[in-house]
Amino acid sequence: MVKRNPHVAKLHGNYLFPEIQRHSKAFVKANPQASLIHLGIGDTTEPLPSFITNRLVHAAKQLGTEEGYTGYGPEEGHYSLRKAIAETVYHNKFQPEEIFISDGTNSDIGRLQILFGTDLRLGVQDPSYPVYIDTGIIMGQSHGFDSSSQKYKNISYMSCNPSNHFFPTLSEVNPPDLFYFCSPNNPTGAVATFSQLRELVQFAKKHRIIIVFDTAYASYIQDPTLPRSIYDIEEAKEVAIELGSFSKMAGFTGVRLGWSVVPFALQFDDGHSIHRDWNRVHSTFFNGASNIAQAGGLAILEKEGQQEIQKLIRYYMDNGALIQKTFEDLGYEVYGGKNAPYVWVRFPKKKSWETFLFLLEKAHVVTTPGSGFGPSGEEFIRISSFGKRKNIEEAAHRLHHLLSH
Amino acid sequence: MVKRNPHVAKLHGNYLFPEIQRHSKAFVKANPQASLIHLGIGDTTEPLPSFITNRLVHAAKQLGTEEGYTGYGPEEGHYSLRKAIAETVYHNKFQPEEIFISDGTNSDIGRLQILFGTDLRLGVQDPSYPVYIDTGIIMGQSHGFDSSSQKYKNISYMSCNPSNHFFPTLSEVNPPDLFYFCSPNNPTGAVATFSQLRELVQFAKKHRIIIVFDTAYASYIQDPTLPRSIYDIEEAKEVAIELGSFSKMAGFTGVRLGWSVVPFALQFDDGHSIHRDWNRVHSTFFNGASNIAQAGGLAILEKEGQQEIQKLIRYYMDNGALIQKTFEDLGYEVYGGKNAPYVWVRFPKKKSWETFLFLLEKAHVVTTPGSGFGPSGEEFIRISSFGKRKNIEEAAHRLHHLLSH
Repeated sequence: MVKRNPHVAKLHGNYLFPEIQRHSKAFVKANPQASLIHLGIGDTTEPLPSFITNRLVHAAKQLGTEEGYTGYGPEEGHYSLRKAIAETVYHNKFQPEEIFISDGTNSDIGRLQILFGTDLRLGVQDPSYPVYIDTGIIMGQSHGFDSSSQKYKNISYMSCNPSNHFFPTLSEVNPPDLFYFCSPNNPTGAVATFSQLRELVQFAKKHRIIIVFDTAYASYIQDPTLPRSIYDIEEAKEVAIELGSFSKMAGFTGVRLGWSVVPFALQFDDGHSIHRDWNRVHSTFFNGASNIAQAGGLAILEKEGQQEIQKLIRYYMDNGALIQKTFEDLGYEVYGGKNAPYVWVRFPKKKSWETFLFLLEKAHVVTTPGSGFGPSGEEFIRISSFGKRKNIEEAAHRLHHLLSH
Repeated sequence: MVKRNPHVAKLHGNYLFPEIQRHSKAFVKANPQASLIHLGIGDTTEPLPSFITNRLVHAAKQLGTEEGYTGYGPEEGHYSLRKAIAETVYHNKFQPEEIFISDGTNSDIGRLQILFGTDLRLGVQDPSYPVYIDTGIIMGQSHGFDSSSQKYKNISYMSCNPSNHFFPTLSEVNPPDLFYFCSPNNPTGAVATFSQLRELVQFAKKHRIIIVFDTAYASYIQDPTLPRSIYDIEEAKEVAIELGSFSKMAGFTGVRLGWSVVPFALQFDDGHSIHRDWNRVHSTFFNGASNIAQAGGLAILEKEGQQEIQKLIRYYMDNGALIQKTFEDLGYEVYGGKNAPYVWVRFPKKKSWETFLFLLEKAHVVTTPGSGFGPSGEEFIRISSFGKRKNIEEAAHRLHHLLSH
């Protein structure tokens, strides 16, 4: 007789984005004339550039030919792509064998939780991408939800807010065993500096923490003095796994492609290689990313591909600047945006779900309530820079009109 | 300080297929002149037919256009594909919402283990696809490996062998909570009959077992009197999840696409909906299959696609017939093949790894040792029907030459 998995039962509430979609759909049903603008989920909207598209098309065509057909690839990914990532993204700091290709960061987070299992203390930035916690809950890392604090038990929430410049006050936190850290952060758009990352790596070394560094938005960093990888800090190889994604970098949200870096040097407390167990878990729970998507990934990393995606990134950053300016002109506290595709706006003394509903009902603009990312997100909303320019302009116009009265 | 996950540490030995690859590579290194023929892993080799290829190409091209670009799809899959599977494969026995699109059966098995969690008794056919057990071990469903029986503890191995016609003697087994059942079976090629599946469903109802029915090879069933789905048995909706795959059906092993059917009617012991928890786990650990692959899946289910894949299936089945005949002519006990892309051959009184090495070294033919699929696979080897005809003919020739002396 199959019992319900008690860990799944611990999940409090629904997953954030379907919940937002439910609200939006209900609103459209009740107001069929309303034309919603979606700045909630961070979904790319611009067509893929031609060099990259042509490579996807070529890869698909090849599958119909005797010479070009391929079946199963290695679970770890095509060697050529692992090598290209090692070279282009990491300037050969890693062997190709330390890079694992995946169908995206979401799945990698899930598989990492399987790798590390139940018996650990999870740490997250508060606010942060809900999948870190949700997958941890399902794996049994928490003992349940505490309504008074709005936090799950046995998880270290490290508050990131304007007063600490969105970098956790590490001297005050309960050190976790496994720490998911995202920079540029989703949702706040904050980017950790070199000195902050040095502090983070030292903290991890001191408390023997494994950092999982999520770089899904790294290509949006415009300021050349900011680090794009945890491995820009020398000693990080001993304490950090890094996750990378082609989704936001190149509009591959629907194509599905990402990677993880698991350095050979990483060890569990008993000295066993983390790389070795990751290889086993990755290969057992996954059978490789789509061969067509992998061919597209290779194109993105080539010179022409890199040039093309800069234009995409510029487009979304200009969207973000427009959103920022709108709120700044209205006198709001505005964060993020400059080196990240998210703008983080404070609506003081208002619950963020209230603000979400207010903007939905009065401006027909869908945003994401900050508290959906953790209790420190309360009073904030996240606005995505992804979207068509004309929609961003219209949203800016509506928001200005609504909030200036 | 991060401890090694003790469940991962329980895994005995490496994953079967990389282990086979290791042996093959070592042999080639020592014998660089040898021309190996790979009939080990069940990997498709024929190019995709044109109707299906064109649809993949079209989907990739569309991503480069304003009108055709798509980002994130629903985690559960495109509605059109869910609907097409409900109609074409299940003749509308299910709502599209009961079908979940995935990147393949391997990943679905992993996520199902996450759904059901740790506290259950796993059951498998013995022999069976190693991923059922390996993912269960990693999720903590076993207490360790027992060397004397060559079985993991707390797992019901249900022997499938010539004496029970490869269908477990259900009256003699320790009923599990969750039972992975594969038909046509990998590796034996045995297909359960209507009366056997009726018995299986009654057994599940009686003991309140959830069956996970793996149909990865269902399209290879030639005999129209054999069931292709567990849902050909009326009451199965109350006890069974079904997994389907485009991999072997249509040469999508590298493209990555599959599905699960989780009927609304399925319940945990406390009455909670399994469908509801699956939706949550699937959406939390996965972000949807590639949009290009999903467009290909739709093409496969259309009339032209269905006609094209029949030719592919015929090709591999003719390979299988050649392998079968080779061993039958030599007087071996041969199973499978007729309704499955695997031929299962007994080498009496020989360890299957010994036979594997013998065939590798003497005929330069890579097979799969039966014991890699479970202790009841001992004395057998699995030979895959996937491969180029000229290689199959050459392998048949070499095997005949080797074994007739």
